[in-house]
Amino acid sequence: MSELRQDPTTKAWVILAPERAKRPQQRPKVGRAEELPDWDASCPFCPGNESQTPDEVFRLPASEQSSAWEVRVVPNRFAALVPGEDSPMVEEGHLFRKKAGIGAHEVIIETPSHNTPMPLMSYEHVEKVLIAYQERYNALKRNRQLKYITIFKNHGWASGTSLVHPHSQLVATPIVAPSYHREFDIAHEYYVDVGECLYCDLLTQELEKGERIVAQTEQFVILHPYASRAPYETWLVPKKHLASFGLFAGMYLAELARVLKDTLFCLYQRLDNPAYNLVVDSTITEDEEDPYYHWHIRIIPRLTTLAGFEMGSGIYINTAMPEDTAGQMRNCLRRFLKEGKVSLTPAS
Amino acid sequence: MSELRQDPTTKAWVILAPERAKRPQQRPKVGRAEELPDWDASCPFCPGNESQTPDEVFRLPASEQSSAWEVRVVPNRFAALVPGEDSPMVEEGHLFRKKAGIGAHEVIIETPSHNTPMPLMSYEHVEKVLIAYQERYNALKRNRQLKYITIFKNHGWASGTSLVHPHSQLVATPIVAPSYHREFDIAHEYYVDVGECLYCDLLTQELEKGERIVAQTEQFVILHPYASRAPYETWLVPKKHLASFGLFAGMYLAELARVLKDTLFCLYQRLDNPAYNLVVDSTITEDEEDPYYHWHIRIIPRLTTLAGFEMGSGIYINTAMPEDTAGQMRNCLRRFLKEGKVSLTPAS
Repeated sequence: MSELRQDPTTKAWVILAPERAKRPQQRPKVGRAEELPDWDASCPFCPGNESQTPDEVFRLPASEQSSAWEVRVVPNRFAALVPGEDSPMVEEGHLFRKKAGIGAHEVIIETPSHNTPMPLMSYEHVEKVLIAYQERYNALKRNRQLKYITIFKNHGWASGTSLVHPHSQLVATPIVAPSYHREFDIAHEYYVDVGECLYCDLLTQELEKGERIVAQTEQFVILHPYASRAPYETWLVPKKHLASFGLFAGMYLAELARVLKDTLFCLYQRLDNPAYNLVVDSTITEDEEDPYYHWHIRIIPRLTTLAGFEMGSGIYINTAMPEDTAGQMRNCLRRFLKEGKVSLTPAS
Repeated sequence: MSELRQDPTTKAWVILAPERAKRPQQRPKVGRAEELPDWDASCPFCPGNESQTPDEVFRLPASEQSSAWEVRVVPNRFAALVPGEDSPMVEEGHLFRKKAGIGAHEVIIETPSHNTPMPLMSYEHVEKVLIAYQERYNALKRNRQLKYITIFKNHGWASGTSLVHPHSQLVATPIVAPSYHREFDIAHEYYVDVGECLYCDLLTQELEKGERIVAQTEQFVILHPYASRAPYETWLVPKKHLASFGLFAGMYLAELARVLKDTLFCLYQRLDNPAYNLVVDSTITEDEEDPYYHWHIRIIPRLTTLAGFEMGSGIYINTAMPEDTAGQMRNCLRRFLKEGKVSLTPAS
């Protein structure tokens, strides 16, 4: 029999139904990405094609002398939101409400190399991508019109990406999405009730149990969440309480790079280069020092397609138990540590 | 500039960004379905293979004498939830909450014909499918353990389906998803505040404006919602207030069949057999006569893939304005009405 579990951070329910993993699938499998060239003349993110993107807002140069770059950030050419003067909410009749689409939508071009996805980058390079994430986060949060900043990454067609060149994105919105409001409300209520951060308590409980822990470092815990929405959903949670990625100490970005790269490397090997989404969750920009929210990174492999039931009910059906997949990830780490391909020690 | 719009029924925001429709797509297009045979020996839903499914819970026979069937309903062989004794919530520590996966997960096999999707069925046959929907809904709601019943349909790989034979599904859960709770809360609050059903008021306003109305019949309005989440998202809303599809008068199912089939036919022709999800939204089973919720059907074409931003923030980016797509649908109806292929008159 399957199991219904509730995510304590969202109160959302998932159905864990490993039996369903056996159902016949006529749909094409997401295969290993085709071999890609390291440079593609038609790719707007490849070196030499810089004029095909809007002007840079940030760059990490290859060296002080060089005009080459290691990471570039540019406004999205097909931006969902663009900078501008904030305008008041418009009411159309007494039901419909709208607002001009101001904000920011940027692309972090992670590397000049067309065919080096994050799991295959060096730790040093992943750190540079994280530096760019944080630089742009902190630059945009100074604009008080922008209430929430989402940093995310889509890898593989099934994740919704439209370009293969390794890139992440950042969207800053003049409103806070109700789903985030809800998470903040839940965390705030818990804080009022218990006097602690929900996520700090969650980490304590998870570390005691151990079965869903993949690994931990000085600053981070890698875990598969209790009410995991998709096989191999993985959370990277900082141990120290902090509500916003914007305030995370730069000196620890190298450690985060190691945690992120090794996690993605295991997923890449174990699931054969899966499509996935990565999201960095922080609190609202106006309240970065709040005591109840706790920033973290979620990685959600897209091995199945969200279907009508999930779209309608918001209840996800997951065909793998997080205890099992966390064990698989520990096995991966163990093997690759021996082979010198990762540096994280799996939890025991 | 794009536009942010709030859905009055969920308070969720969408970004309407038609400019983004121009961005380059390297991803493979969802093409017209391959030519399919009308019978497939390996399909568990095709006639002759009835033994490959669990025992029927409902059938509409082809005729009284015949052993042939027109619609069959069977438990899902790979059910996410199965019937059983309800068991109490289990608390694991003070954060984690779970429940045995009891409930129901059924498949409505819509037709014996492997290659006749709903837009190509006769009105009479679509009505039979709707009769099966309602029969099973009403049979399952008598089990007081089951708090919510979702009827849905996935068509095309991009919708999350695993089998091509035309089918719908029904999931009955022992909990109510928070996203539905939220919708009910919003509708209830509106009712307390204004004294009217939110959806009844929404229909009045939409009919006055007219620009998002595709068509209307005696009992139904077909519209593209104000804060449409995806291009060509279409709602079928009954004009008379009623909280549950379970109570919808059987004498009007023929009209609903006509509305549904013609809508799907236009989408099929206009979008070249798109993948889509269809969801029937009702109130909770315990409160079917409530004055504030209003059942309806949502059809959501899956022309793009949900990506990290949507997964993270719950804010959808839609590249088409509902006013434009509603106009396109009216044009389709006009043309096909002339050709005798539909029977609905487009709104003027």
